[in-house]
Amino acid sequence: MDAIEVIRAKRDGARRGELSTGQIDWVIDAYTRGEVADEQMSALAMAILLNGMNRREIADWTQAMIRSGERMDWSMLDRPTADKHSTGGVGDKITLPLAPLVAACGAYVPQLSGRGLGHTGGTLDKMESIPGWLASLSNDQMLHVLREAGAVVCAAGSGLAPADKKLYALRDVTGTVESIPLIASSIMSKKIAEGTGSLVLDVKVGSGAFMKTTETARELAETMVALGTDAGVRTVALLTAMDRPLGRAVGNALEVEESVEVLAGGGPSDVVELTVRLAREMLEAAGVSGKDPERALKDGSAMDAWRRMISAQGGDPDGLLPRAAETMVVEVPESGVLTRLDAYAVGLAAWRLGAGRARKEDPVSFGAGVMLHAKPGDVVRAGQPLMTLHADETSRFERALEALAGGYEVGQASSGDLLPLVIDRITA
Amino acid sequence: MDAIEVIRAKRDGARRGELSTGQIDWVIDAYTRGEVADEQMSALAMAILLNGMNRREIADWTQAMIRSGERMDWSMLDRPTADKHSTGGVGDKITLPLAPLVAACGAYVPQLSGRGLGHTGGTLDKMESIPGWLASLSNDQMLHVLREAGAVVCAAGSGLAPADKKLYALRDVTGTVESIPLIASSIMSKKIAEGTGSLVLDVKVGSGAFMKTTETARELAETMVALGTDAGVRTVALLTAMDRPLGRAVGNALEVEESVEVLAGGGPSDVVELTVRLAREMLEAAGVSGKDPERALKDGSAMDAWRRMISAQGGDPDGLLPRAAETMVVEVPESGVLTRLDAYAVGLAAWRLGAGRARKEDPVSFGAGVMLHAKPGDVVRAGQPLMTLHADETSRFERALEALAGGYEVGQASSGDLLPLVIDRITA
Repeated sequence: MDAIEVIRAKRDGARRGELSTGQIDWVIDAYTRGEVADEQMSALAMAILLNGMNRREIADWTQAMIRSGERMDWSMLDRPTADKHSTGGVGDKITLPLAPLVAACGAYVPQLSGRGLGHTGGTLDKMESIPGWLASLSNDQMLHVLREAGAVVCAAGSGLAPADKKLYALRDVTGTVESIPLIASSIMSKKIAEGTGSLVLDVKVGSGAFMKTTETARELAETMVALGTDAGVRTVALLTAMDRPLGRAVGNALEVEESVEVLAGGGPSDVVELTVRLAREMLEAAGVSGKDPERALKDGSAMDAWRRMISAQGGDPDGLLPRAAETMVVEVPESGVLTRLDAYAVGLAAWRLGAGRARKEDPVSFGAGVMLHAKPGDVVRAGQPLMTLHADETSRFERALEALAGGYEVGQASSGDLLPLVIDRITA
Repeated sequence: MDAIEVIRAKRDGARRGELSTGQIDWVIDAYTRGEVADEQMSALAMAILLNGMNRREIADWTQAMIRSGERMDWSMLDRPTADKHSTGGVGDKITLPLAPLVAACGAYVPQLSGRGLGHTGGTLDKMESIPGWLASLSNDQMLHVLREAGAVVCAAGSGLAPADKKLYALRDVTGTVESIPLIASSIMSKKIAEGTGSLVLDVKVGSGAFMKTTETARELAETMVALGTDAGVRTVALLTAMDRPLGRAVGNALEVEESVEVLAGGGPSDVVELTVRLAREMLEAAGVSGKDPERALKDGSAMDAWRRMISAQGGDPDGLLPRAAETMVVEVPESGVLTRLDAYAVGLAAWRLGAGRARKEDPVSFGAGVMLHAKPGDVVRAGQPLMTLHADETSRFERALEALAGGYEVGQASSGDLLPLVIDRITA
């Protein structure tokens, strides 16, 4: 077998384009070993993006990426495992309250997370704003934190799906990211290799999400649910709104603060609602009953799990979070109802303020970001603060304001065209 | 501008997939300089292969590749220039008698040629079987040979369309060769940069050719004729038969011998007919009249030009050509009419006998190849020699025979489904 044969098979039309299991196994393995070159894999990725893959091919592709590295195993634990994955959005800090909440309700949450790239934030960047907290753990350390706190959030080690790591970096620079088969297999190979027994997928829809329409989000969700189910992971997906930001805080330390509010029984209603809904889905998928997540947020047990989780990873749950040196208030331009607050515009502004990174190697500013003082549907008055921008240098405000221009609208009545917070639920 | 922007533009659908002149200029220049990486260019090449390019894009792409290097100029010569390019076939030695023939009739022929890859032979490999003959010439040496002999056949220097050289090597290993826009621009960028005033394209059709059908060959021919015409080169194309081998000799030195026979006024009728037809097309395109190519083959003037051309490049026109050490005769299996003799099967056999190379770095055997003792339409008797295989080692015969299995057929009457030698003529 050689790379050109596999590339040609996928290249030449819809029917003839089907790759055999043997071809997929070979090409993923040979790419991981460096026998198939980057320029060959990028041509194949483009052919896959343009000609697609069927369900069998996507399942084979995912399994081959899992086999490229280690597969974790939590069967030594005395309780079921559950995890959540979000496709990424603006203000999406749900993992932070959710992981300890589900742990407090009786399931283990072994979550391997990622960093932000572009306008969407990454869980590890947010957690790292907590003084002392360490993202990198060995498998033994991960097990220790899980036993200590019931939940662990950390970076995936290099041994997990190395083929996916290599391929993802390649797709990022070759215009081959936007392929549902490649996105689905990338996410699911890591989640299946991570060894969770059940998985809830939060597939975001809207301007601030990767998937701009409900149709493409549903296709991605269905593909991932099928992949998880076939691999023996109880998998369910929610399609949720990302046309406006989630909660009021967008930025690393700002989102940690908001998450702690939720764990203390407060916090913005949309964050609380989605956290509780996802917790119920995870507990159901894990087969754990008898605990009410809403109650666990009120009675302090979720907060206790959070504090144990942070401490077990070297963090100080009472440590002072970084604050940006400079702030700037954006005022409401006219009185009325805030009809639109675009998630992408706010995400881009936070990115430009320093909360995100342009390249993987760049550092992030922990304090930078946007605090929203009104959400769509709220009645607002001209001159009241609409949002506060946070940055380490005042020079960043101008480009953030440019990002926000046209990103919000005040009308005379709610337009009613916001997406429902939970749009749909996808099961196998 | 960046590579991902250009890749996305071509990737995203037929209408939105149109690249601007600026995008094409930038990406070819940046690729030549190494700023656009191989893995980015191969993703773009796959997107071009699958989504196509329109005439304007192909013209821009060709011009950008020409501008990546030098453009030769023969305006100091006192006679018009004409060249021919064949898309490659089995037994296609036409350049060897054609270049001196056209020179003898009054046009200069400055031909930059290539080497064989796969089952098709390359003109330079054939010429190099002549003792002493050198393929690599400086521009000054090229001019000297042209003035001396009226014709020169040599390797393209590294300064000519370097973007094409780099891209061609990349396409070869990434499954992105089979794209008419990329094939047409690759051929025409070199031919236009070579500086010929007129050009006749011999686009081969059939099993032994790159283009298997008349439809795809016509599309390629029309694209190349338009490119040449737009660049100020008088260009015409013939579609010619490559369902069976051309002539009786397939292999390097074997084809030189047959070419010399043609220059001596003899040789197989199909080789003579195509050589004369292409000579007439070249002379007409160059605006040269008054000389009859058929006569120039008979009166020795073409042979004189050949001898001057070989001598001027260090070769000995009377030198002994290499011979393979071993031969094996393949007999006619039953009496009747040879109804089919597949060009690809014979080309593959010659390749396996040693006449071709698997990788660019490999040497070729000058003596290896196949001599055909019958051509389709000939009446044959069981047991008479059908072809003789030539190789340096007897161990090569077995795989050559495998290549030939099913490649010829003897029936009771001519099937009449051979392609006409000249199928069509394409002009601007």
